[in-house]
Amino acid sequence: MASESGKLWGGRFVGAVDPIMEKFNSSIAYDRHLWEVDVQGSKAYSRGLEKAGLLTKAEMDQILHGLDKVAEEWAQGTFKLSPNDEDIHTANERRLKELIGETAGKLHTGRSRNDQVVTDLRLWMRQNCSKLSALLWELIRTMVDRAEAERDVLFPGYTHLQRAQPTGWSHWILSHAVALTRDSERLLEVQKRVNVLPLGSGAIAGNPLGVDRELLQAELNFGAITLNSMDATSERDFVAEFLFWASLCMTHLSRMAEDLILYGTKEFGFVQLSDAYSTGSSLMPQKKNPDSLELIRSKAGRVFGREDKEAVFEVSDTMSAVLQVATGVISTLQIHRENMARALSPDMLATDLAYYLVRKGMPFRQAHEASGKAVFMAETKGVALNQLSLKELQTISPLFSGDVSHVWDYGHSVEQYAALGGTARASVDWQIGQVRALLRAQQA
Amino acid sequence: MASESGKLWGGRFVGAVDPIMEKFNSSIAYDRHLWEVDVQGSKAYSRGLEKAGLLTKAEMDQILHGLDKVAEEWAQGTFKLSPNDEDIHTANERRLKELIGETAGKLHTGRSRNDQVVTDLRLWMRQNCSKLSALLWELIRTMVDRAEAERDVLFPGYTHLQRAQPTGWSHWILSHAVALTRDSERLLEVQKRVNVLPLGSGAIAGNPLGVDRELLQAELNFGAITLNSMDATSERDFVAEFLFWASLCMTHLSRMAEDLILYGTKEFGFVQLSDAYSTGSSLMPQKKNPDSLELIRSKAGRVFGREDKEAVFEVSDTMSAVLQVATGVISTLQIHRENMARALSPDMLATDLAYYLVRKGMPFRQAHEASGKAVFMAETKGVALNQLSLKELQTISPLFSGDVSHVWDYGHSVEQYAALGGTARASVDWQIGQVRALLRAQQA
Amino acid sequence: MASESGKLWGGRFVGAVDPIMEKFNSSIAYDRHLWEVDVQGSKAYSRGLEKAGLLTKAEMDQILHGLDKVAEEWAQGTFKLSPNDEDIHTANERRLKELIGETAGKLHTGRSRNDQVVTDLRLWMRQNCSKLSALLWELIRTMVDRAEAERDVLFPGYTHLQRAQPTGWSHWILSHAVALTRDSERLLEVQKRVNVLPLGSGAIAGNPLGVDRELLQAELNFGAITLNSMDATSERDFVAEFLFWASLCMTHLSRMAEDLILYGTKEFGFVQLSDAYSTGSSLMPQKKNPDSLELIRSKAGRVFGREDKEAVFEVSDTMSAVLQVATGVISTLQIHRENMARALSPDMLATDLAYYLVRKGMPFRQAHEASGKAVFMAETKGVALNQLSLKELQTISPLFSGDVSHVWDYGHSVEQYAALGGTARASVDWQIGQVRALLRAQQA
Amino acid sequence: MASESGKLWGGRFVGAVDPIMEKFNSSIAYDRHLWEVDVQGSKAYSRGLEKAGLLTKAEMDQILHGLDKVAEEWAQGTFKLSPNDEDIHTANERRLKELIGETAGKLHTGRSRNDQVVTDLRLWMRQNCSKLSALLWELIRTMVDRAEAERDVLFPGYTHLQRAQPTGWSHWILSHAVALTRDSERLLEVQKRVNVLPLGSGAIAGNPLGVDRELLQAELNFGAITLNSMDATSERDFVAEFLFWASLCMTHLSRMAEDLILYGTKEFGFVQLSDAYSTGSSLMPQKKNPDSLELIRSKAGRVFGREDKEAVFEVSDTMSAVLQVATGVISTLQIHRENMARALSPDMLATDLAYYLVRKGMPFRQAHEASGKAVFMAETKGVALNQLSLKELQTISPLFSGDVSHVWDYGHSVEQYAALGGTARASVDWQIGQVRALLRAQQA
Repeated sequence: MASESGKLWGGRFVGAVDPIMEKFNSSIAYDRHLWEVDVQGSKAYSRGLEKAGLLTKAEMDQILHGLDKVAEEWAQGTFKLSPNDEDIHTANERRLKELIGETAGKLHTGRSRNDQVVTDLRLWMRQNCSKLSALLWELIRTMVDRAEAERDVLFPGYTHLQRAQPTGWSHWILSHAVALTRDSERLLEVQKRVNVLPLGSGAIAGNPLGVDRELLQAELNFGAITLNSMDATSERDFVAEFLFWASLCMTHLSRMAEDLILYGTKEFGFVQLSDAYSTGSSLMPQKKNPDSLELIRSKAGRVFGREDKEAVFEVSDTMSAVLQVATGVISTLQIHRENMARALSPDMLATDLAYYLVRKGMPFRQAHEASGKAVFMAETKGVALNQLSLKELQTISPLFSGDVSHVWDYGHSVEQYAALGGTARASVDWQIGQVRALLRAQQA
Repeated sequence: MASESGKLWGGRFVGAVDPIMEKFNSSIAYDRHLWEVDVQGSKAYSRGLEKAGLLTKAEMDQILHGLDKVAEEWAQGTFKLSPNDEDIHTANERRLKELIGETAGKLHTGRSRNDQVVTDLRLWMRQNCSKLSALLWELIRTMVDRAEAERDVLFPGYTHLQRAQPTGWSHWILSHAVALTRDSERLLEVQKRVNVLPLGSGAIAGNPLGVDRELLQAELNFGAITLNSMDATSERDFVAEFLFWASLCMTHLSRMAEDLILYGTKEFGFVQLSDAYSTGSSLMPQKKNPDSLELIRSKAGRVFGREDKEAVFEVSDTMSAVLQVATGVISTLQIHRENMARALSPDMLATDLAYYLVRKGMPFRQAHEASGKAVFMAETKGVALNQLSLKELQTISPLFSGDVSHVWDYGHSVEQYAALGGTARASVDWQIGQVRALLRAQQA
Repeated sequence: MASESGKLWGGRFVGAVDPIMEKFNSSIAYDRHLWEVDVQGSKAYSRGLEKAGLLTKAEMDQILHGLDKVAEEWAQGTFKLSPNDEDIHTANERRLKELIGETAGKLHTGRSRNDQVVTDLRLWMRQNCSKLSALLWELIRTMVDRAEAERDVLFPGYTHLQRAQPTGWSHWILSHAVALTRDSERLLEVQKRVNVLPLGSGAIAGNPLGVDRELLQAELNFGAITLNSMDATSERDFVAEFLFWASLCMTHLSRMAEDLILYGTKEFGFVQLSDAYSTGSSLMPQKKNPDSLELIRSKAGRVFGREDKEAVFEVSDTMSAVLQVATGVISTLQIHRENMARALSPDMLATDLAYYLVRKGMPFRQAHEASGKAVFMAETKGVALNQLSLKELQTISPLFSGDVSHVWDYGHSVEQYAALGGTARASVDWQIGQVRALLRAQQA
Repeated sequence: MASESGKLWGGRFVGAVDPIMEKFNSSIAYDRHLWEVDVQGSKAYSRGLEKAGLLTKAEMDQILHGLDKVAEEWAQGTFKLSPNDEDIHTANERRLKELIGETAGKLHTGRSRNDQVVTDLRLWMRQNCSKLSALLWELIRTMVDRAEAERDVLFPGYTHLQRAQPTGWSHWILSHAVALTRDSERLLEVQKRVNVLPLGSGAIAGNPLGVDRELLQAELNFGAITLNSMDATSERDFVAEFLFWASLCMTHLSRMAEDLILYGTKEFGFVQLSDAYSTGSSLMPQKKNPDSLELIRSKAGRVFGREDKEAVFEVSDTMSAVLQVATGVISTLQIHRENMARALSPDMLATDLAYYLVRKGMPFRQAHEASGKAVFMAETKGVALNQLSLKELQTISPLFSGDVSHVWDYGHSVEQYAALGGTARASVDWQIGQVRALLRAQQA
């Protein structure tokens, strides 16, 4: 009889279970993460049972004491799993019974594994969301600090990997930091929906024994209680939301990593990874690979498209490591200002050349075409755009005059982009202030 | 020269473009949806240019008037696309130029297709999120009304498709309605992040011509402005968020549809779809297929895993149709109360039998085992659980006595689940009140 | 200096490595699976080095002997991983060096971790594909045997979960078995592309030291060698193909599980799972849940959308367990013939009624409409389709006469479907023969 | 009555259909692609009906003639869809009835939309696989031709975007061509499984009217017939396989595009796209964006994760365009040999330096470390690796002597990689031969 092995559904089964089936069904390997919150949830529930008159005060104390003992064993690494423990919940209750005897059998009164499991998962995720928020804030803060310190560095802004316009290096850092503030905002929203108590929903119909769910909520410090017991035990929206959050956050980190990998090539030469975040090749002695960045990029794939409890644990670990590595990379990265300056080339000022004509009254579409002709002329002649003579420019438009020489100044070009959000120094300062204010607000 | 065809980047190109490449690159087929918001955005931008001194008042008026004309042509279906219009934005500006001449060329001053495209998309999505919210509320309201009207109907609650516990039919409806309120909450959050203005971010570096972005924000009624021009033009988090929202909402509708398909089989016989939401078979004359429900279920797949602009249009249409069909299905569905009642069977009260023993002082785990033995005994004897004699029950536990007969009442069983969120009448009323309050709050 | 810890890229690094980075980068946790094939690959490679004159015969023997020792330690569970072993390949070589000294350093000559890793993975997967093929054949064989034994059982064929036409139960089994034969065919194709040797491709440029790749191919018994070293070290098509194979196979098993879950509900009552493949509920004593089937269904999700090495190991394990559980389920499943027979209802013969008219000369579209009218008439009158009187039928069409009574025989209905692939007994026999022949061919 | 509108399931329905439901359910918008194969399938089926005695010779001729008329209307663009045509199959039959009268109603005898739809889809896909094979072969041939013509060009091979080893440019081209030959092989396998006839499977139970499926197979030139009618009408493995094929092929093209985008940056400067495959910026006159390559890359995303009929049409179109654009890009691409040569740097010969020591008898692991020390020494001194003096090298190992100067020759380095699959000239020639032979074999 299966009941002799102590399986929870005891009395009804007569056939033996195929051993491969046991292994297949067991979740104990990955849900050990939950030992602490399982004890926490059971302690609160035993208080609820006492208030409902289903446990005496003495029984409750016995259970609370026993559960503390169970927790202590886990904390000290002395808890011993038995082969019959199919999940963390049965393991803890089995051990409780060994410690305090038959009273342990009263703990599950009116509770189902359905509401127990999801309560534990929500407790665990609530805790974890807080940890990940802190790591994310640390990363954003590192980025903003760095952006502030290097506000005077210019380099090429790229679109389609082609040099586009001169830009502030801090502007690039902030473009990624701003993306991460959205992740931070979203994580708080996810956490709000994680922080809802399902305990007291039973299997599907609810709790029939008068347990006070608002007491449970207070005991476990949840922000709200679930509205419908059937929905409460089956919905995993908050898991899907968390995984989506992780995948979007990873997409942002992955894009930043991609840029840095590129900027770190010999050909670009803008940045250099610290040795602490690089590895070598087993074959080629000269290689120093940006493995930290490549792993960030590749981990993105691991986060997508999963929706189970195991994914939550794995993805949480991944996010935690990735955020710390990213923080380390950003704070130790070296930049090569001269290479950055060297990469600025006159053709990136073609837009400014068009604006020069706009300021002289030419409609932008015509000015764009005129500037395009200048670029073509320079290419054809094999010279840089700023080496075209005034005479040559005047064959394109009579509006060109001597003051066109002012166009060829990268610093001046950048300072024009002073509208909010642009790359000019003042706007970068404004961005730094905005992101800092956001961080303060989110941490509050 | 390509410039003669009026392509936007005019002056620089000399080679002809491979025709398959043109077709490949053109987005005009699906972004026609954007004509209205494109005009709206351009009108606001021309006001910004006037304030910045880049357009005279007269030029601005000319442009505004021309854009109204363009909008009128779209509205009346007389707008003619030219084969060279590669997207909606070039089409509108090309037409503007035909209508008002060279001044049209000034409209794009300081603007890039990058900030224009994303501004248009945000405007369109903001509008659409409002429409979808309204449809979603209509569906939830229909469900709550129905739940209220049918509070007295009981039927089996299932877990693992096995009959579990007697439940209120309204409790089932509300379990799905509650899930949809989360979707509704999430949609408002998505919309908040959609409602941020990128215009004035140029290509990547920002706007160099002193355009006042807060004026643009006011003109277009955005909730905030983007913080960093580089991020503003490239990020599509709000698209990913919207698609994720849609996929989660579809998952909920899909699960409801799945339940209803099952409840509508001959074997279950609980509900009957209205003819308006069924179709037949080209071969089998007796068939009446729940196509509306199956399409809801299958559309779920269409929503996942896409991240482009085209997906936004398609998914919006799908969601709009699905929400309306679901509302129609729910409001016209017939239920068969007798079949529901007939499906309640005594073994579903095995949990109550265990609680009977718990109330007599037996620890739950033992009571569960005792009740399991009663189920096994009944199965072995080939009788229903409530047909075991008191004597037979007493061979399992001496705690059984005459009052055990009170256990065999489905209505009484349901009324026990009175803890908040349970299936008892009072709790169902509470749920209805909660969902109605949520709806009111979200609509405010 | 990092080199002191024995890291492979030794000489070049001076900075310490961030500890979280080490953990992040290490794959040792999941690639232990590869110990055996790694030794196998290294043994072959040392033979290649000897033939190329890069090892003396004595050195080769020393290495071969050392590698056998390493394998022995793994096999006996005495191999000790060191914290610096970042993957299985470094662990084995580190141990080899401890065992035989400096000569171990010659083993990697001309080899790169790039070609080593992918060679090991291909060796492992080749082996595993064979194991999975065997399990899949076992499942198909079980299904065909069962189909043969139960050829006389009829039950409703469903479309859209609505009763459609009377069908053979064996026909249903074979519909799933036939799907699995396609999986079996595809697995052989995947294995063919797995079975290609990359060793000798170095990092990207190839092997510069004259190693004979055809010798390596012969040593390791590969079917072919890779054509291009750059492609060989980076491509993982065979991993993507294997995972796609698994996801399609799981889809098939998942569909079968879904059908069986439904057929096992109280409402359908066609089949009953063996206790060995069911579990109970911690709350409801009467519950017997089809957990084996639900796990098969849910595991399908785990297989999709991953493309890394870790996925290969996990998915292989999942497939192996799932195939065995499915075989167990099918071979122990009980069927309830009477319930199946009872579920056949006269309206499922509406198609036959239409064919009756077709045989009397009416075009099918008209006959379909006439039969539809009969169904509607029966529904309106509240009687079964076969209880309409001849007179009533004749108000629909004068072609109805006394012989219409022959239509109402389920067995006769089924026997009509004798075209190849249909549900008639003869066709089912033909299918059994075809699947058996396929199995024999694939195993050859 | 719905029957009056000519809907196929005529007689049974009395309620009107919600208009949004009609739109929701209609597939006519995208399945017009199927008109030709639908006519083809119906012609074959009417021949089957005649042979089975269900049509007279005269009726069959009337139907065949009518279907030719329908096809003619489609081909000439004169076919008019009616709002009640819910799919291509009903449209064609509706039109046939208008053209030839009631006999049209006999065409569907014993056929179901289930077997009709999947037969049409298989016919269409078979045709399309052939077209895509031809385009793929054309691309591979272009690549091999180019590889052959530019065998003398060297450039850096990269791993992790870091310069790794000197490599032949042709070797890079061939690495991508070889990947495409696998796609080509897989497409043939998919086509083999597409090319199986389901017609004659009815709805699920088969064909009850004696239609000869082998005759249908011969008429429509299929390679085999489906084995089980239930499986035949529901399985879409071949669709999933085709979409997987497309996603893998797109991954390959996407990787090639990624490399080319990088090689085309100002910073790398190795290749230049033809103007025919570039576009400009609406804002920045100097920009020339590699839009063809970016679209190839972004289209990859469109192919993943869909499994419906609509996806097949869309993905087929995408693949067809992408293969043609890729062919165009490769055949018009300009390469800059000097930039390629300039990018080869002495540190890429660090592996050769290690092999130099290996040839002098040092175990590879020690040689790797010695070479790494040389790299570090050169970096510290700020000189190129080949500028270290012999004396300096000898402080690392006494095995260095005057002949170390032979190491510093890129051409010589490349020629070492002569093992099959390597980058040496002879091996590249061998690869060209192998790929050409494969192409010939696949086309046969």
